[in-house]
Formats: sequence, structure tokens, C-alpha cells
Amino acid sequence: MTIKTIQKSSSEVLLASMRDEASNDKPTATLSASILEAWTSLPPEVRSALVTSELGIPNPATAGSNGTPSTTKPESFSISSYTSGSSSSSDDAGENTDNSGETVEICPKTGTKVVLKPLERAPKNVFEFSKTHTEESTHVEKTSAAVVTTKTSIMTRTRGWRNVFTLPIAYDVNMIPRGTLLDPVNPSLLEATGNHPEGYNRRFAVFDDAIERLYGEKIRAYFAVKGIELTVCVLNGGEADKRSAAVDKLLDELCAYKLRRREPFLAIGGGCLLDIAGMGACMYRRGVPFVRVPTTLLAIVDASVGVKNGVDYCCAITDETYKNRVGSFYAPSACLLDPSFIATQDARNVCNGFGEIMKLALVRSTDLFELLETHGAGLVKSRFMENSNVPDGVGDRVIDLSIQIMLEELGPNLWEKTLERCVDYGHTFSKLLEMVPGADIMHGEAVNVDGFFCCILSYLRGFITMDTVNRVFAAMKSLNLPTNSLDLQSELAWQSCKDAVEHRHGEQRIPLITDIGESICVSDITPEELDRALEVMKQFPH
Amino acid sequence: MTIKTIQKSSSEVLLASMRDEASNDKPTATLSASILEAWTSLPPEVRSALVTSELGIPNPATAGSNGTPSTTKPESFSISSYTSGSSSSSDDAGENTDNSGETVEICPKTGTKVVLKPLERAPKNVFEFSKTHTEESTHVEKTSAAVVTTKTSIMTRTRGWRNVFTLPIAYDVNMIPRGTLLDPVNPSLLEATGNHPEGYNRRFAVFDDAIERLYGEKIRAYFAVKGIELTVCVLNGGEADKRSAAVDKLLDELCAYKLRRREPFLAIGGGCLLDIAGMGACMYRRGVPFVRVPTTLLAIVDASVGVKNGVDYCCAITDETYKNRVGSFYAPSACLLDPSFIATQDARNVCNGFGEIMKLALVRSTDLFELLETHGAGLVKSRFMENSNVPDGVGDRVIDLSIQIMLEELGPNLWEKTLERCVDYGHTFSKLLEMVPGADIMHGEAVNVDGFFCCILSYLRGFITMDTVNRVFAAMKSLNLPTNSLDLQSELAWQSCKDAVEHRHGEQRIPLITDIGESICVSDITPEELDRALEVMKQFPH
Repeated sequence: MTIKTIQKSSSEVLLASMRDEASNDKPTATLSASILEAWTSLPPEVRSALVTSELGIPNPATAGSNGTPSTTKPESFSISSYTSGSSSSSDDAGENTDNSGETVEICPKTGTKVVLKPLERAPKNVFEFSKTHTEESTHVEKTSAAVVTTKTSIMTRTRGWRNVFTLPIAYDVNMIPRGTLLDPVNPSLLEATGNHPEGYNRRFAVFDDAIERLYGEKIRAYFAVKGIELTVCVLNGGEADKRSAAVDKLLDELCAYKLRRREPFLAIGGGCLLDIAGMGACMYRRGVPFVRVPTTLLAIVDASVGVKNGVDYCCAITDETYKNRVGSFYAPSACLLDPSFIATQDARNVCNGFGEIMKLALVRSTDLFELLETHGAGLVKSRFMENSNVPDGVGDRVIDLSIQIMLEELGPNLWEKTLERCVDYGHTFSKLLEMVPGADIMHGEAVNVDGFFCCILSYLRGFITMDTVNRVFAAMKSLNLPTNSLDLQSELAWQSCKDAVEHRHGEQRIPLITDIGESICVSDITPEELDRALEVMKQFPH
Repeated sequence: MTIKTIQKSSSEVLLASMRDEASNDKPTATLSASILEAWTSLPPEVRSALVTSELGIPNPATAGSNGTPSTTKPESFSISSYTSGSSSSSDDAGENTDNSGETVEICPKTGTKVVLKPLERAPKNVFEFSKTHTEESTHVEKTSAAVVTTKTSIMTRTRGWRNVFTLPIAYDVNMIPRGTLLDPVNPSLLEATGNHPEGYNRRFAVFDDAIERLYGEKIRAYFAVKGIELTVCVLNGGEADKRSAAVDKLLDELCAYKLRRREPFLAIGGGCLLDIAGMGACMYRRGVPFVRVPTTLLAIVDASVGVKNGVDYCCAITDETYKNRVGSFYAPSACLLDPSFIATQDARNVCNGFGEIMKLALVRSTDLFELLETHGAGLVKSRFMENSNVPDGVGDRVIDLSIQIMLEELGPNLWEKTLERCVDYGHTFSKLLEMVPGADIMHGEAVNVDGFFCCILSYLRGFITMDTVNRVFAAMKSLNLPTNSLDLQSELAWQSCKDAVEHRHGEQRIPLITDIGESICVSDITPEELDRALEVMKQFPH
């Protein structure tokens, strides 16, 4: 695209240029100055209505467009998912759609007619409506004397208001130059805590116990050098403590500190700590900003990039604990990633992180899989530090690819409007494996066992060959990852499928691979199929 | 606007018609079919980029537009609030902004340069970036021998990814014909619980204890008639029980019921119950749909329409309980309002509801205020039932106006990006009044005391006359609302201002009226001013 000089006074020129620019079919999200200029020359209310229409939300402004709202998937239950009728383009309905901004919608399923009118003081967000619904039923009663047929027609009218709103979210995942995050020369950590007024010299951070032990002093020194007093809340970082009690402890500390409404706090630690911190950030004062600093390989490629948080929940009625049952979707204000933290993880924790990386490779990337096959063992040994075990740059490339794949998959579906997600690979059977009382299995390990089990399911369906299964097995073993668990038995496997139906709303939607780097979702797995797969699993050493 | 027949093949005609339609300056959010057709003829990536640009989110696609993101207010701390530089419209910077969709941003505050490039598989949501930041400092050291000047320039480079997403929200607030909500002939209540597959004959509801006592049987009968088994969780509805424990009880019941991910549950009760239910809905499985059925006057005009939820939080460290300190912003899937519920409220609870209505009248509507002045006492007596105390339709008009004002104020600011909110009137001093241990004051009552105190503050600043104060006082008294409290003392008042600074991020932002129906926010209230107002308060009977 080229930059043109546009005469603002001539609407024709503006719009012609908009079309010329638009007809340029380069696949890019960049707008040239001329298109933008033509766009901004449209009246604001038209622009707003087009935006609402484009986003596919059930705004009356979309009357006349025939597309189903793009965010409403068939599995959605939303009662406000009426699609627009074609009333404004047909003149036989006799509807008044052009006076005073009124529009009419007909729900294709129920036939409910909705007339909408924008409110004067919030014309883009609030619409007064009147809904008319007619339900007809026929009742036939046969007595010895006669057949009585009763036809009933019930017409109900509801009036009210529709509230339409769009929440824009944006955050940066920053790769900090290796080993520099806690160097006082690097301003990133301080800058992430917000643009405060001069003299505002306090900050709040939450760490897990490992970070307190290994880096607590260094982090405090970083802020001390800058004349800032750091208040720290230390929480246990283990899966066993990822419970509501930990969120409450954080909330207590935030209350005591009196964190302001728009004051970002730092969350530094592994995935469990980040999950707890995200939940606290979402709930304290109904949401305060927070900055994620993941310090484990697992957290760097997994918890750091998305918007999910949560804790395991122990139900007082069933006395069972459910994995990640309570939490929310809440975006961080930023993420700061420094892979040098991995150097202080023990071997098992590093391998744990590879569980999620292997998952991403299996469903989306042969490149990543080949890197793991070739250099996985070396990376485990070197803990992602540059050394002779692996060629320079391989560690960074593995992390980069993992994060990119994760972001590409999450990006368009951040709030999980679609429940068929390939990144759910390895997350069907692993939930119950992790929750077996006393089970000594980490999250990435459980994901890997689940992922290998799913390879067998793929093999049994003829999606992949035994050669591929063996190749996956060898790669997993080179990463010291478990591929089976004594707890993975018939009953647990079938219960997992039933739980998936509940969690993924009515369908199993279990991702399986069709090749290395390719996946689909299936919803028809049977108990017999699981048992056959469990038999095949026995051929592989644990 | 008129409907035209458009030749799809001719881009010129399309765009000319788009301009013609657009130049029509009627203030309406409705789009004619022709404008929509012209719009949809633009390439999808251009439309998407325009939408992102219009929403003002920090998407690289906005490079070239000079507007500040509309959602980023000066009080925001977000570190990703870089506005776009003018790089794409100047050709002297030498930046490559047109190849492969790359764009460049310069942060006007820090000078950080950000080059962004869309990721291939998520080009609208994820952008790879590289940031360059240069910090320069000069250090001068004077010794007896010489003056040593050291200039340091620190250049840092960060690479990473920007995640950009828009969450569309829409829900209907339905006014159900008076007294018909629980009539099995009215399908609204059942329909609100979702479009389930044939034979899915269970539903979940949470009530408060008053609803269980007064309507429990009727609600169960409604569903029984339709062959549906209703599982009910009953919670205490009082302010004293609006705590985390109640949310936990709801979560326990949801776990035991195994509520599916997209299965809406019903929340029927007063404001406290709705607040607890909203929080549970937000957190269970990271969000399930829920339907609000407010059953008190206060809830109908207040808790029912917005997206806020929350509970009072008792901090284990300070041992203090903070009003609504923990909660979230989470939209209901729908609201069903039937004012006939008000008939079973006791007199004090009805008056409590008028506390919030009076607030809305004071800040936004002389019409509503006059209705309260004239008919308030009658409405309190009749509890909004049609009878001889008030002319027909007055009760409905009061509720309608209240909800409309609330929606108009909330609509464009649902997530409170702006912290100056006139609907916060009466919500500065009331928070602490409600939290005084053992205080026998309801929410609407506390809001009213606060609202009257703010009238005195307005009077002392010369914003309103004593006549207006007296008029407000008389109207409040006709509604049996308290206008003062023994707990409203110097210390509590000043502490409230300090809490406001914390909650409204760095400024008091206290709404005061400048006339009946008009308000502004002030941030410079002093302890002396509060004391003077407290003195004036003494002239009015409690």
C-alpha cells in the first residue's frame, strides 16, 4: 500500500480511495492512512453501528445483515442469541424500521418479534425493546362420546432494555533478554508496575516460596536501588496449595496494603502462583491490574500467555476435589519472560514443562517436534542455558515456537467461545490423574501420559501408524516424561470422558492427532475403545 | 433512510451509496441495507482492522490514526496503552510500515519504539513485536580536583508478542407483565434457562431464604408442570451473610449438581443474593451463564441491570470487613423483572429501595424527582401495586425511569474505565456507615444519608440553595428514609474520603449535585468542609 495525499473536502475521492485501497488483496491487518481517513469521514454513529455489526453481537444495528453472530456457536445456550431478521430489506412486513432508529428482529427458532429503539443518552449501548411471542398448542381429548380438540394460542408481550457492550483487551508478552530481568539496569520490571505519580515509592508483589528462597533478596534489592519499598506476600507454589485459601491469603495482604484500583501488582513464580495471583487480581476490588512473571518452564509456555486463572476446589458436599473448578478469565496487564529462571529448577520440574511443549508439538508443529526429538535430552540437561549440549539458539527457538503456537491457538478464542480446542490435547484424562489422592504426578507429566494415551486411541482409529506411536514414545522418553500411570485404569478413563462432556458442554470434544502436528476433535469415544487402548498401553514400558 | 436496490458488481455504486447513506445525519444506530452491503464488500481484513481501530485498542492496525484509544483514560496505569505514532503517514522516518503488515509505534511518554508484525495463523489477534527503549542519564561528580560528567545511555531491546482481543457482551433486561413470571402460562422463566436438547429436564436455581419462604412452592410448581426437576440452593439474603462463605456454598451445590459449562442457572432474590450468585457464576468453571430475577425494589432498580457482583470481605490481617471488596464484573445472560414481587416486601425494605431511586433522581432526573415528591408516600403505601393511592402507571413509570437512567449511565462505562460516575452518588460515606459494627442501617438507607450529606456539601459550596436542600429533605422524609445517622461523624467522613481516593484511584471523585437532576465530581473535599457540613446536618431532624 502506498500513502496518498487526500483532499478531505471531496467525499467521492475519499471513498474511491477507500475502495482502491480495499481492493488491494494483500493479507494484512495494516490500514493505510487513506483508508483510515475515508473511514473517519463517515459519521460516528454509522461507524459504531458497523463495528457492532462486524463483531456479530446481537445489536439491533445489525438488522439487514443476514450473518449469524460469529461469536455464537451452536453449543452456546445464550438466550439473547437472536439473529437479525431480514425485515429492513423487505418492504412487505410492514415494519417501521427506518423511523427514529427503530429496528425489528425475528428469532428464527421461536418466532419472537423484537422491536428495538436506542436510548437517547446511550444510543450505542442501550436499546429499549418490545418482544412479542406467540405460542400455539393443540390438545385432543377422546372421550366415549366425542373427540374434543382445543387449540390454544398464547401471546406474550415483554418490554425491556438490551445492554450491548464490547470489552477490548490487549497485553504484551515480553521476552526479556536472558538473565537481565532482575538487573537494576533493566527498567522492565519497574516499568511494568505502572506510571505512578512522582514520589509514589511502594509496590506490591506476590511470590511463591521457591522464588522467595532463590530470588527474594535479588528482587528486593532491585527495588531498593530505585528507592522503592516492596511489600511481598509469599505463598506456597505447589499444586497441593492451589486452593481458595491461598487466594484468600493474597486478598488479605492486598487489603492490608490498601492496593489502589489501578495499581498493578507483580506475580512472580510458577504456574500455580500465577493462577492464584490471577484470581486474586480479578476479584480484589472487582479487578486490579497484575503483571505475570513466570519462573518455570511450564509457566513460561503455558500459564504466562493466556487469560485463565483458577484453583482446585474441594466440594463440601461430594467431598471431592475438582481440578481448576473455580477461577475466571482475566487478562494480565503484561507478562515478562526471562528463561534464565529455568536454570534454578530441578530436573523433574524442567521435564514437567516439556509435557506441555510436547503437547503443542503433537497437535500443531512438526518443526517443534523435531527440535524435541533431536535436542530434547540436551535441553533437559542444560536447562535452557547456552552450553555445549545443544547448539546456540535451540532453547530460545523451542520456547518461541511454544509460545507462538499457544498464542495463535488462544488468540482468536481467548474466552473459549469455541470448546473444540486442540490445546486441550492431554487435558482430558490428566485432570483425574492429577486428582487421585496421594498421586505423585505433576501437571506436565499427567498431560504427557494423557497425550500418549491419546496417541494410542489415534492408532486404534487408524489415524496414525504404530511407527508414529513409537516415534512419539521415544521422543517423550528422551525428555524423561512418563507415558503411563498405574492410576490410568478403565474406570478413571471413562469417568474422564463423562467429565469432558460436562465441562465441554454436552460433547466429549477430545482432541486426537491425525499425524504429528495435526489434530481433530472426536466426541464418540466408547468405554470399549478406552479398554482396548489401555491394553495396547501395556506393551510400552512405564 | 430509504432502501435502495444495489448492483453488487459495481464497487463505485456501492461506495457512493455508502457515502450517501452515511451523509444522512439522523442520529441513529440503524444501518440501512445498502450501507451494510457496501461495508461487506470491503475485504474482511480491512473491515477487521477498521473495527480494531474504531475500538481504540492498541492494535498495530491503528497506526496512522492519531486518536488516543478511547478506553484509555488518564487515570489508567496500563503499560500497554501506547498510542500510535504517526509513522505511517510520514516518509522521513525510514520505517518499513507497509511490507508484510509491519507497523511501528512510538510511545510518546517513554520514546519506546515498537515494531509489530501479525502472526500468520492469528493475524487479527497476535502480533510479534520488537521494542527498543533508550534511557539517557547524566551524572556529575564534583571533587576538589575536577568536575567529572558521565553520560550514560542504556539501550534495551525486548521482543515478544502482543495479544489483542475484544469481548462482546449483550443481555436483555426484560420487564415481565406484572405478576405473570411464575404463571406456568408465561414461558419466560423456562426459556431463560437455555435451549437444551429434548429431554434435558433438570434446572438449577439459587434463592434467598425470603423467596424460599414466600415463593418456593410456586417456583417449584412452575417447573413441575413442565416436567422439569428443579434443584434449589437456598442462601440467606441478608447483608450480614453476603460473604465468601455464601459463594462457597453455592459453588458446592453447583459441583454436586454437575452444572454444565453453558447451562444457565436461575438466581432469584434480593440484591445480596444476586451479588453472591453473580460471583458464583463468574467463578464456577471460570464462568457459566446465569439469569437474574430481582425480587426487591432495591434489586430491581440496582443489582439487576449492571454487571457487578461481589461480597463484603473480612480481612484476616486488619480484622476489618470491607464493603464489596471482593467480586468481579460479569454479565448475566438475562434479567427478568416482575414488580409484583415488591408486594411481599415489608415497609422498611420498600423504603430501602427508594434510597437508590432517590439517588438516580438527584443526579439525573427532575422528572423522577417530581414523581417521588408527589407520589412517593403513596407508592410506599401501595408497594407498587395498582390501587387508589397513586394514579395508574405511576409505579411502572418510576421503575422504568430508574432502570433507564441506570442503564444509560452504566451502558457506555460498564467496566468502569472511567471512575467519575454520577451513579456513585451516595456511595462514598455509605460504605463505612454500613460497615460500622452492629449498625442497623440498610444499603438504600445508608445511600440516602450519604446523599443528603452530599446535598449539604453542595449547599456549602454554593452549588444549590437551602430551598433545594429543604425540598430534597422533604421528599426523602416522605419516603420514610433516614437523612442522618449517629455514626456519621468527623472521623468516619474523612476516612470515607481517603477510602474513595484508594478505590477511585488517586482522586476522591465524589459526585455532588449542582441542581436536582444535575451532578459533577469533586476531588478536593477537606476535613474542615466535612465538619462544617456535619454542623449543618444537625439542623435537620434525624
